[in-house]
Amino acid sequence: MSSTKQFEPASGTRDFLAPEYEKRERAFATIREVFARYGFQPLQTPAFERLDVLTGKYGDEGDKLIFKILRRGDREATGEADLALRYDLTVPLARAAAAYGSRLPAPYKRYAIAPVWRADRPGKGRFREFVQCDLDIVGSSSPLSDAEIVLALHDALDSLGVPDFRFLLNSRHVLFGLLEAYDVPADLGPGVLITLDKLDKLTPEAVIGELVSNRGLAHDVARGLLDDLTAPDAADRIREKLKAGQTGRTGLAEVDHLLALTEGTIPSDRIGFTPNLVRGLDYYTGVIFEVVAPGVPGSIASGGRYDGLIKRLGGKDSPACGGSLGIERILPLLGEGEEATCAQIDVAVTVMDEDLAPDSFRLAAGIRRAGVRTGVYLGASRKLASQMKWASTQGARFCVIHGAAERAKDVVTVRDMTTGEQTEVPFRDATAELARRCAPAT
Amino acid sequence: MSSTKQFEPASGTRDFLAPEYEKRERAFATIREVFARYGFQPLQTPAFERLDVLTGKYGDEGDKLIFKILRRGDREATGEADLALRYDLTVPLARAAAAYGSRLPAPYKRYAIAPVWRADRPGKGRFREFVQCDLDIVGSSSPLSDAEIVLALHDALDSLGVPDFRFLLNSRHVLFGLLEAYDVPADLGPGVLITLDKLDKLTPEAVIGELVSNRGLAHDVARGLLDDLTAPDAADRIREKLKAGQTGRTGLAEVDHLLALTEGTIPSDRIGFTPNLVRGLDYYTGVIFEVVAPGVPGSIASGGRYDGLIKRLGGKDSPACGGSLGIERILPLLGEGEEATCAQIDVAVTVMDEDLAPDSFRLAAGIRRAGVRTGVYLGASRKLASQMKWASTQGARFCVIHGAAERAKDVVTVRDMTTGEQTEVPFRDATAELARRCAPAT
Repeated sequence: MSSTKQFEPASGTRDFLAPEYEKRERAFATIREVFARYGFQPLQTPAFERLDVLTGKYGDEGDKLIFKILRRGDREATGEADLALRYDLTVPLARAAAAYGSRLPAPYKRYAIAPVWRADRPGKGRFREFVQCDLDIVGSSSPLSDAEIVLALHDALDSLGVPDFRFLLNSRHVLFGLLEAYDVPADLGPGVLITLDKLDKLTPEAVIGELVSNRGLAHDVARGLLDDLTAPDAADRIREKLKAGQTGRTGLAEVDHLLALTEGTIPSDRIGFTPNLVRGLDYYTGVIFEVVAPGVPGSIASGGRYDGLIKRLGGKDSPACGGSLGIERILPLLGEGEEATCAQIDVAVTVMDEDLAPDSFRLAAGIRRAGVRTGVYLGASRKLASQMKWASTQGARFCVIHGAAERAKDVVTVRDMTTGEQTEVPFRDATAELARRCAPAT
Repeated sequence: MSSTKQFEPASGTRDFLAPEYEKRERAFATIREVFARYGFQPLQTPAFERLDVLTGKYGDEGDKLIFKILRRGDREATGEADLALRYDLTVPLARAAAAYGSRLPAPYKRYAIAPVWRADRPGKGRFREFVQCDLDIVGSSSPLSDAEIVLALHDALDSLGVPDFRFLLNSRHVLFGLLEAYDVPADLGPGVLITLDKLDKLTPEAVIGELVSNRGLAHDVARGLLDDLTAPDAADRIREKLKAGQTGRTGLAEVDHLLALTEGTIPSDRIGFTPNLVRGLDYYTGVIFEVVAPGVPGSIASGGRYDGLIKRLGGKDSPACGGSLGIERILPLLGEGEEATCAQIDVAVTVMDEDLAPDSFRLAAGIRRAGVRTGVYLGASRKLASQMKWASTQGARFCVIHGAAERAKDVVTVRDMTTGEQTEVPFRDATAELARRCAPAT
């Protein structure tokens, strides 16, 4: 039966059949294990929140992408919404941190791996239902917390087996110091930063053009800034410039502190000061970072310190920092692993005769009790060939044949599906024999 | 900060902090493992479906409980909905079975453990977001499939450690046979069955009253039916009656076949023929069952054969059977287990001086690499007492103290948080020593 539009999932959403589901779940389990090793705690919040919890938190553009839920019963006819699907995991964190503050450890180190929903135009790699993978530390202003976020994300990417990646590290204070050092007028600052953020997509000339035409920056200032930012020794040049001002020195100290804290844990070629890293979101207040990987446009992880955000989102005024793995971008980078074929069972048990079915079920129950995945043939055919074909498509390593001939001798025939070799085993020993054969090699 | 209304999750939904989340996840993992041992495959479908996929599938009462999602952009103002949150896991299964039919094994044995959403009035134990836990076999009319559903649910309940439970087994054909045997007019049948389903809640007299006044059944017929159904030897009496007609004999054969197939696997005191079991839903066509547990009103699991449903739900005409664990009712039955206190870390690493922080991070990294959950102190205090207090609230078994005195001797002090005993360990051996101490006892 071919897939017709009528049976497809709603636009921008996906069904996951077993092989893809299991690949995703293995990745999530790896990440959870890493985060738990750092003492981060899981937090699960509902799929929807009251509408007022979400609106006004993501800017005008974000608000348009919120899926709103219609009122129910008599009030359905009003056409009004009172609930909405969560748009990210940060607003629910802010709400929960406010709700359970006294019951939570301080600082509160939490992770969440869960779907979010955005009414974006669906496209290649862009979904309306996708998983976010966040970890955050709420209630600590220590630079150690920033370092711990970076370390945990590094560990997660490493454990997932992402073949090659690099942390780009910066601080909002570096950016503000930069604006000071190049005498960018204060009112032009935010616009200039938005344009500088495009340096990974546009040529330096194009960036200068935009700085001058759109942002109102003097041409020589724009030229001087770009010359330094794109020089082979950009980091050194910028360091020199930054040392002249207090803000710049603060930013440099933040970056260097984080580099010192991760030294010896993160290889030095996997992390570096990147003075032109801006991060689009304006809520960051200190260290910021992105993780890039060859061949992947944009970033595969990102984060930073956002001390004012929890309060802005409706929570308590708490210092906070965090990061997020772009798991939907990371998954395609991972090899299929050895379980790509996704065998459903290890042992297949035949049913050669209706009367023998209870015995087949008892056999299967015994083998399963040893932790071995075991299927009983559920089809109507009583032919051995049909049942062997089924065993083969299920990926079974062994097939247990239990027919009238076997019953007469109180044995079962165990067929090795790889070699075709068949062995008779006493009925009462069959469970132990199959468990032994299917035990993982050690 | 006390929990105020403003920070609570939306009505009928719940936040899960770490201890509750982990308890739930452990249960889900147990169930998944059991289902996988039977060769059932996971299927994950999106949280929402196109509205037309869901409406008209759950009856008028069900339709009212569907959470509908408002159109977006320019069309938001219409007040119309085009999407809706899934109400159960069966309609999405029917859609997916139709969409991916040729890619799925035949029969398709699938499980799903996932939240569903219903706009029910929230109440004790009744939520608007709750997890369903379904397993189904689509494309097999074999009684072996019915038995496999029952066996897998039994195994799951057993593996979860549900202390006491019992399968009540019946067949729709038994019920129809019963109506025949007691000469209930055909047009009264459906109503009579709805009333008989209340026998676990109402007295026999009340049921007779309802049968006569509301269902229009003659009093002596109602009395005869109830006398047999509530007799100590009800099952035997009903068997005798059923043998008189073809429908009754079919039903009895279905029940007896399932009992034979599960004999020796399910203890006989955990499953039994229950002729007055009706199941509210009218879509069942063969074997039906419920699982009851002492002290739990209603059932903790249920299911049956529903051969026409997949087609009715918009899919292909396929025989099917399935069952569902009432996991939200089952969870409260489970003991807290040994991890009730939910320690966050095993090893706490102090930071006695800013300059020593990189060393603390490297130590922690090494210990984590051995798979041990390890936290670094992220607070501002440099006092040992504060850091020890933190280590204790985190549930750490060991605290690694690394201050100026230790650094001078190139050692760390390892404190056993249970006994208070302190040992000096060379810095370079610290990782191995902590890994050894935290290794699970074997």
